[in-house]
Amino acid sequence: MAKRRVKGIAFDMYGTVVDVGAVALACKEVAPDPGAFTAQWRAKQLEYTFLRSLMGKYQDFWRVSEQALEFTIQRFGLQASQEQRKRLMEAWLHPSPYPEVAGALPRLKERYPLAVLSNGSPKMLRTGLLRAGLLPNFRWVISVDAVKLYKPSPEVYRLAPSRMKLKKGEILFVSSNSFDVIGAKSFGFRVCWINRTGAPLDPLGPKPDLAVSSFDELTTALE
Amino acid sequence: MAKRRVKGIAFDMYGTVVDVGAVALACKEVAPDPGAFTAQWRAKQLEYTFLRSLMGKYQDFWRVSEQALEFTIQRFGLQASQEQRKRLMEAWLHPSPYPEVAGALPRLKERYPLAVLSNGSPKMLRTGLLRAGLLPNFRWVISVDAVKLYKPSPEVYRLAPSRMKLKKGEILFVSSNSFDVIGAKSFGFRVCWINRTGAPLDPLGPKPDLAVSSFDELTTALE
Repeated sequence: MAKRRVKGIAFDMYGTVVDVGAVALACKEVAPDPGAFTAQWRAKQLEYTFLRSLMGKYQDFWRVSEQALEFTIQRFGLQASQEQRKRLMEAWLHPSPYPEVAGALPRLKERYPLAVLSNGSPKMLRTGLLRAGLLPNFRWVISVDAVKLYKPSPEVYRLAPSRMKLKKGEILFVSSNSFDVIGAKSFGFRVCWINRTGAPLDPLGPKPDLAVSSFDELTTALE
Repeated sequence: MAKRRVKGIAFDMYGTVVDVGAVALACKEVAPDPGAFTAQWRAKQLEYTFLRSLMGKYQDFWRVSEQALEFTIQRFGLQASQEQRKRLMEAWLHPSPYPEVAGALPRLKERYPLAVLSNGSPKMLRTGLLRAGLLPNFRWVISVDAVKLYKPSPEVYRLAPSRMKLKKGEILFVSSNSFDVIGAKSFGFRVCWINRTGAPLDPLGPKPDLAVSSFDELTTALE
């Protein structure tokens, strides 16, 4: 990758900067199999973002996540009180960064202006980054809420060059989510895929410029 | 449901008229757990239709299904020859109708003009309906290929009133797929959900006018 041309970095949030798996901890209270429950919740959450974008019926990521939770509780035939539902949702406001993230971001910030570009609602993003102690690393916190569409709509990715005052080819977009990697590359960013699990890339055509297994590896690749 | 206003019926194909589960039979040859394999294949197939529509990167349903198969083979760490891949794909050209469908369609056809409106490519739809012996029931076989977008994009649903020369409120759209039920209702059809498994509806807002468990129950409701 021609790293000299990179003039700014934009990160996906959930699954990339912070661990969605941490939500599984909160699910222990209602689900006998919290791993399966969280996987279904996350899959439905993403499916609903796709469907709402395609139908032109945007609602923000907090509402979409509540609806996905509702479906998941019903799908597993579980009982959950309003209080328990509330606690499950609040897990999204207390996300856990991946272990190496807090060390890597300040090193990257010395050399590049950093942004978050996420499906999350503005409140989810600000609160989550603040509580995780990561907010000071980012010059921009950009939510899809500004365009009322979700990833991988090109209108979403267009927010980054617009806010960061850079060309799209000057932005390195970093995500762990395969569909986001493909959407970002299809849009025209340089793209780094943080593939922590060794998963195959969805074979839709576009491929990332760089694939690494952690933020540390990304930081090294840019030095 | 005000059935007097219904002047034509449009059916979804896969999972509604024909059983996607039948593809699982073909998967036995390569997958130790054909049920899980087929479920992953189908989930990826749908995800890719959503992603391609959102990215504006349409490829037809045959190509999308091949790409979803490729991912699924890799994801499960399986081996499959080109010959085996070809046989798996061809299962989509030999679909099995649900048992009551062949009896119910002629009864419905006596009273309403019938259409199929499906994500399938024109060739997949024609070949599949012909081999299943169902083609003579349908006056129109409509593929999303005409608009290069997939469900639940409103542009797709708009094909039905246009081809059938009916208003959208005069068309009863029939699907087993929850996202399709929601997309069709959001568009403005009257909608019947054939819910064969007792699954919960995705709580995105729009609800079907009618929910039944089989084509026979639909036929009775319209008489």
